[in-house]
Amino acid sequence: MKTTVLIFLLATSIATSHGLEHGIDYKIHPLRLKSGSGGHYVKGITCSSWRVGVEAHNIIEWKTIPQECEGYVGNYVLGDEYREDSKVVNREAYFYAKSIDVIKDGKNIWVFDIDETTLSNLPYYAHHGFGVEPYNATAFDEWVNLGIAPALPETQKLYNKLLSLGFKIVFLTGRPQSQKDITVKNLKDAGYYKWEKLIVKDVSKYKGKTAVTYKSNERKKLEEEEGYRIIGNIGDQWSDILGTNTGNRTFKLPDPLYYIA
Amino acid sequence: MKTTVLIFLLATSIATSHGLEHGIDYKIHPLRLKSGSGGHYVKGITCSSWRVGVEAHNIIEWKTIPQECEGYVGNYVLGDEYREDSKVVNREAYFYAKSIDVIKDGKNIWVFDIDETTLSNLPYYAHHGFGVEPYNATAFDEWVNLGIAPALPETQKLYNKLLSLGFKIVFLTGRPQSQKDITVKNLKDAGYYKWEKLIVKDVSKYKGKTAVTYKSNERKKLEEEEGYRIIGNIGDQWSDILGTNTGNRTFKLPDPLYYIA
Repeated sequence: MKTTVLIFLLATSIATSHGLEHGIDYKIHPLRLKSGSGGHYVKGITCSSWRVGVEAHNIIEWKTIPQECEGYVGNYVLGDEYREDSKVVNREAYFYAKSIDVIKDGKNIWVFDIDETTLSNLPYYAHHGFGVEPYNATAFDEWVNLGIAPALPETQKLYNKLLSLGFKIVFLTGRPQSQKDITVKNLKDAGYYKWEKLIVKDVSKYKGKTAVTYKSNERKKLEEEEGYRIIGNIGDQWSDILGTNTGNRTFKLPDPLYYIA
Repeated sequence: MKTTVLIFLLATSIATSHGLEHGIDYKIHPLRLKSGSGGHYVKGITCSSWRVGVEAHNIIEWKTIPQECEGYVGNYVLGDEYREDSKVVNREAYFYAKSIDVIKDGKNIWVFDIDETTLSNLPYYAHHGFGVEPYNATAFDEWVNLGIAPALPETQKLYNKLLSLGFKIVFLTGRPQSQKDITVKNLKDAGYYKWEKLIVKDVSKYKGKTAVTYKSNERKKLEEEEGYRIIGNIGDQWSDILGTNTGNRTFKLPDPLYYIA
């Protein structure tokens, strides 16, 4: 599996890192570019409408992407649109951050989720039907433990700008304690060189709890016990930005691959 | 102006009511269909990414649509995509409503916004640059007072299904008391024949207050003073569904034309 993953990684890192106009390696998935975003119907709805429905949180608690949308989602995430959509969100986040008068007491933080926010698992998902296959914990953990997930380039630009503006960065991820070391290595290798905190999930404490509960609780600790102010909060899941102590402003990055409640 | 408006109305009601594959009257606006949604750049971002950024509430408090996106937005709202996006949202709302065990005490309500949710102002916006022009209260009121805004067909389907399921309908609109009579007439003419309440804005009471404050306050009264349960809440603006007493579940219809805080 390792070699295959590396080939995927190469292809998708080219697509995501350099913003090529058509940076898709056709070898990795039998994709065809559609002539327009409205051209692919699934049970009477288009895949593009399904995607917008997901982004605006109208379609919730879905387990897998619609089977008929595998090609559409693959084209979207490996093509320009995913990159462009991510760019717009990160750009708005930067405009907002720039407008803030950062008090220099070191307590202004920006919360980043990790998967599909900071690091991309596209090399994995390209190999697993772009979300058509039900979540496979074993296979996904195997991928995470390789520690080779590439940075999402538009998020990385925001990260660097926020550091320049004087924000402290807190990573808040659903990854478990057992994956903390490999996550630290992966973040550093991908160019995220500095942070205030990296919060991983205490799996025994949050067993059976939703991501909204886990993340709200950890953000509450940050603000109420540790005296931080969450100025911004960015993630690819609505569960990253709903709940309590969400931060002064939240940003939802695109993610048509999976849904975490 | 009246005749022009009627021509627009005719053209857009054909486009919105019958779901034609290409129900665009090219005479009403100098539109060109783009070959894909990613083809139109505005200051380094695409109009489609701008639209998704608006829908997911990343881009907020905007006054007008980007000038460069007039053609894109025009094609979107008069074409199939707006209709399809609306259909998906209303469909999800119906799936959710169906799953609810409606207690037959007449207290389960569904809150509908009016403009761009229940009634469409497309005939007006087609004449006003699809949101490129700054909001003109005089011209818009003149349009509203004609009382000829067509129904949004996908919302109307939801409305009918909700009535069949036993829900009571409450319209909650930012339209002022002075436009209540014409709104009642317009709703009935457009096929909305029955409702529990139609709440219009007491302009003196909410002067200088945001729509979030106004709508939260009115929903709070519905639930806490009048004993209703808001099971669902649908609107085209985030200010329709943010705040307090938002309802058990909320639905955000597409609207790339304007933003109300």
